[in-house]
Amino acid sequence: MLSHLDKYEILLASNSPRRRELLAGLGIEYRVTALPEVDESYPPTLSGEEIPLYISQEKAAAYRDQMKENTLLITADTIVWLDGKVYGKPHDTADAKTMLRALSGKTHTVITGVTLTTLQKQTSFTVSTEVTFASLDDDEIDYYADTYHPLDKAGAYGVQEWIGYIGVTGLHGSYYNVMGLPIQRLYTELKKF
Amino acid sequence: MLSHLDKYEILLASNSPRRRELLAGLGIEYRVTALPEVDESYPPTLSGEEIPLYISQEKAAAYRDQMKENTLLITADTIVWLDGKVYGKPHDTADAKTMLRALSGKTHTVITGVTLTTLQKQTSFTVSTEVTFASLDDDEIDYYADTYHPLDKAGAYGVQEWIGYIGVTGLHGSYYNVMGLPIQRLYTELKKF
Repeated sequence: MLSHLDKYEILLASNSPRRRELLAGLGIEYRVTALPEVDESYPPTLSGEEIPLYISQEKAAAYRDQMKENTLLITADTIVWLDGKVYGKPHDTADAKTMLRALSGKTHTVITGVTLTTLQKQTSFTVSTEVTFASLDDDEIDYYADTYHPLDKAGAYGVQEWIGYIGVTGLHGSYYNVMGLPIQRLYTELKKF
Repeated sequence: MLSHLDKYEILLASNSPRRRELLAGLGIEYRVTALPEVDESYPPTLSGEEIPLYISQEKAAAYRDQMKENTLLITADTIVWLDGKVYGKPHDTADAKTMLRALSGKTHTVITGVTLTTLQKQTSFTVSTEVTFASLDDDEIDYYADTYHPLDKAGAYGVQEWIGYIGVTGLHGSYYNVMGLPIQRLYTELKKF
């Protein structure tokens, strides 16, 4: 379906096992490379979708020296956005619980920025999904944070884990975007790349 | 979290591996039993959510003789509903392709009816999710139907399979409901059962 990309070596630069799984689900061949330490700070003037867009481009920049003629690099960044504030990865379990209490009973936006890069060109896009949480008990928050240790996840939750089963009443947009990669949009962008 | 249910033996009557996985994700103990041949016909006066509600109750009725004092039986039925028409399981691959062509480029509704039954009481509910498909090429439809054989799936697709990755632009409501079991609502109903 994406045979016009056969000339490229597709390289996913990500430490996220969810992103790797999702890209594998497209049925294309690709190679994974771990992400080096990328400074994930961003100019304070940025807001909402500008933030993961910027960081996905920063992640691409970190690979510039390793790009070959036929490399097609995929980088992505996901944030949770609520009331004008970014929720990134929690520092520790206590921070995770604070984040989950903030998300409880509310609708937040999950925004992923994706950047496709070759030596010739670069294209970026963002996808947003609204996610609504039920009111979570302290028991539920404690059980999830203490059992699942969601320290590698923006907003301190994995929608595909127990907390997503019992806590997410619904969403509006792409489910896979909430997991970390808007795979349908990525497929569309790869089709026309 | 659901320890008040410890007195029950929870029994999921379903042949669907997706439903079994989803219920397992709640972290409760349950037993699975295969569903006997249940007549899945319904009165022609029924429409939309009335249909899976009715069939989930018919499935429960098929177990009446096997219920023990402490059995809590879970039965469910899922339909795809588009333009006033039910799309059930396709008869064969050609039928699957016809269904997918009907869903292509449109928004349909996935409705699951769930019935909880003990010897003392019965409660039923339905959950609806809107699912929007991109316009699918014949190539994509043929590839999916020929490779994945979605003959056990209402509407001829699994949202968690390749077609869901490349074809579903977004949804409104519960993702797990589209997989066959509205797990967050089920958790809420079990909490108050």
